[in-house]
Amino acid sequence: MDVNELYRLAKEWTLEAGTNLRQAVVQEVEVEYKTSAADLVTQKDKEIERFFSKKIKEAFPDHFLLGEEGVSEGQSAYDPQKETVWLVDPIDGTTNFVHNKRNFSISVGVYHEGEPLVGIIYDVMSDEMFHVLIGNGLYVNETRVEPLGEEKTYEQALIAMNHLWLAPNDYLAEQPLQQMVQEIRGFRCIGSAALELAYVAVGRFEAAIFNGLGPWDFGAASVLLQEQGVKFTTVSGDPVNVFKHSSVLTATKTLHGTIQSRYIELK
Amino acid sequence: MDVNELYRLAKEWTLEAGTNLRQAVVQEVEVEYKTSAADLVTQKDKEIERFFSKKIKEAFPDHFLLGEEGVSEGQSAYDPQKETVWLVDPIDGTTNFVHNKRNFSISVGVYHEGEPLVGIIYDVMSDEMFHVLIGNGLYVNETRVEPLGEEKTYEQALIAMNHLWLAPNDYLAEQPLQQMVQEIRGFRCIGSAALELAYVAVGRFEAAIFNGLGPWDFGAASVLLQEQGVKFTTVSGDPVNVFKHSSVLTATKTLHGTIQSRYIELK
Repeated sequence: MDVNELYRLAKEWTLEAGTNLRQAVVQEVEVEYKTSAADLVTQKDKEIERFFSKKIKEAFPDHFLLGEEGVSEGQSAYDPQKETVWLVDPIDGTTNFVHNKRNFSISVGVYHEGEPLVGIIYDVMSDEMFHVLIGNGLYVNETRVEPLGEEKTYEQALIAMNHLWLAPNDYLAEQPLQQMVQEIRGFRCIGSAALELAYVAVGRFEAAIFNGLGPWDFGAASVLLQEQGVKFTTVSGDPVNVFKHSSVLTATKTLHGTIQSRYIELK
Repeated sequence: MDVNELYRLAKEWTLEAGTNLRQAVVQEVEVEYKTSAADLVTQKDKEIERFFSKKIKEAFPDHFLLGEEGVSEGQSAYDPQKETVWLVDPIDGTTNFVHNKRNFSISVGVYHEGEPLVGIIYDVMSDEMFHVLIGNGLYVNETRVEPLGEEKTYEQALIAMNHLWLAPNDYLAEQPLQQMVQEIRGFRCIGSAALELAYVAVGRFEAAIFNGLGPWDFGAASVLLQEQGVKFTTVSGDPVNVFKHSSVLTATKTLHGTIQSRYIELK
C-alpha cells in the first residue's frame, strides 16, 4: 500500500465532501430526526458517507469503512487488528450543521492492522484542515504545527466539555466536575467533538472530556493527538480502543493526571 | 449629527482596529494580568480603546466614550440620557484572543440621549461584521439578515451559556439551570459574550444567559437584538439599563418567558 497516495486521496476526498457540504448550508437542509430532537441526522450525512464508501471501494477494495450511518454494503465481520479500516464521520456536529451552519467537521481516520496511519479533521466553513500522516507531523492546511510548548498551568487551561456533565447524569459524578469549573481557567463548548479534539492537538485548548463517543468521532483525532504527544485515554485513564465506543479524556500530560484523579469519578 | 456618516465611520474604525488585532495574533501577544488569571487584559485592548477614543474625539468632540479600560481622558461626569455615548469593547473575549486566537470580537454601540443608534459587533478572525443603524435592518457584512422566522421550540433551542452557572455560584440557583441543560436541545460556550449575543440576533442561537456584563459588553448587542425584535432583559425580566452592569437574558419571545419563569432563580 502506498501510504502517501492514500494520504493524498483521503485529503482530496475530504475537501470534495467539504465543498458539497459548504454548498448545502446556503440552501435549506432537509432534516430527518433519528432517535430524538437532539440527535439529528441529515440526508447529507448519509450522502457523504456513501461518497467515501464508494471512493474507498474503488481505490482500496480490501479496506473497510466504519461509520455512524452504516451504509457500507457487502462488508462481513472482520478483525480491525488485521485490516485497514477507515473511521469516517461525514458530519461531526450535525446540530451545528443544521442550526448554526458553522463549526461542524468531517473526520477521517485510517488505521492499518490496528495502528494509526492517517488522521484528517476538516472544519468545513473555516476551510481549515488538520491532518497527519503518522510520524510526519501535524499540519493545519499547508502549515506544519509546532510541537506543543511548555504545558499551561492549571489556572491557565481552557477545556472543552459539554454542559450536560455538570447536571445529574448516568456517567460521571457531577460534583467534582462542578468543582473543576470553578478552578480551571475556562470552558468551551463548540459542538463538534472531532473539532474540539483537534483544537487540543494544536494547543488551542489544553484538554477535552467527551462521553459516549463512537470510533468515527475520535478515529481521526486520536491520530492527531498521538502525533503531538497529547495523552488520549478513556475517562478511567485506560488506553482507548478506537474501534469501540468510549468516554474519553485528552489533555497535556500533567493536566491529564490532575483532571483524572481530581475531578473524574465514574458512576 | 449626520447619523449615516457616524455609522460609516464607526464601521471603518472597527475594521481598522480589526486589522490591527488580526496582525497581532500572528505574533506573540504581550499579556498583562489584571485581577486574576481568568481576567486577562492585553496591551492591544488598551491600544484599541485609545484608538477609538482619539477617533471619536476628532470627529465628534462632544461625544462620550464608555469603555472597560477607562483610558478616555478629560471626561467629566455626564448624563448619558442627554448625550451621545459610545460603548466600546476593544476585545470582547480576551481569553480567546490570547489563547485560541479566534472567536473574539470588537463591540461598538452608540446611544443618543439614551436611545440606541448604532450597533457593531465584529468577529475579527472570521471577518464577519454584524451591524445595525437602528431602523435600517441588521446586516452581516454586506448581506441583510432576514427577520427571524417562526420561533424554534423548546427542544430545538440552542443556548449560549457559561459553564459556571451550573456549579454553585453567588448569582443564580444552579439546580433549575441544570434541569434546563437536560431539557433544552443544546448549549454552547464560545467565549465572547458580544459575539454570542450577535448570534442570537441572527438566529444561530435562540437564547443566551450572561452574568455580570458591563455596558461595553452588551452596548452593541442590545441594538442588534432590538432591531430584530428579540427580547433582551435582565435575568429578572426587567429592562436593561445599558449604561450599568447587568446580568442578562436574551431570547425569542416565547422561549424568553419559559426560561425566565422555569429556570432562573436569583440567589
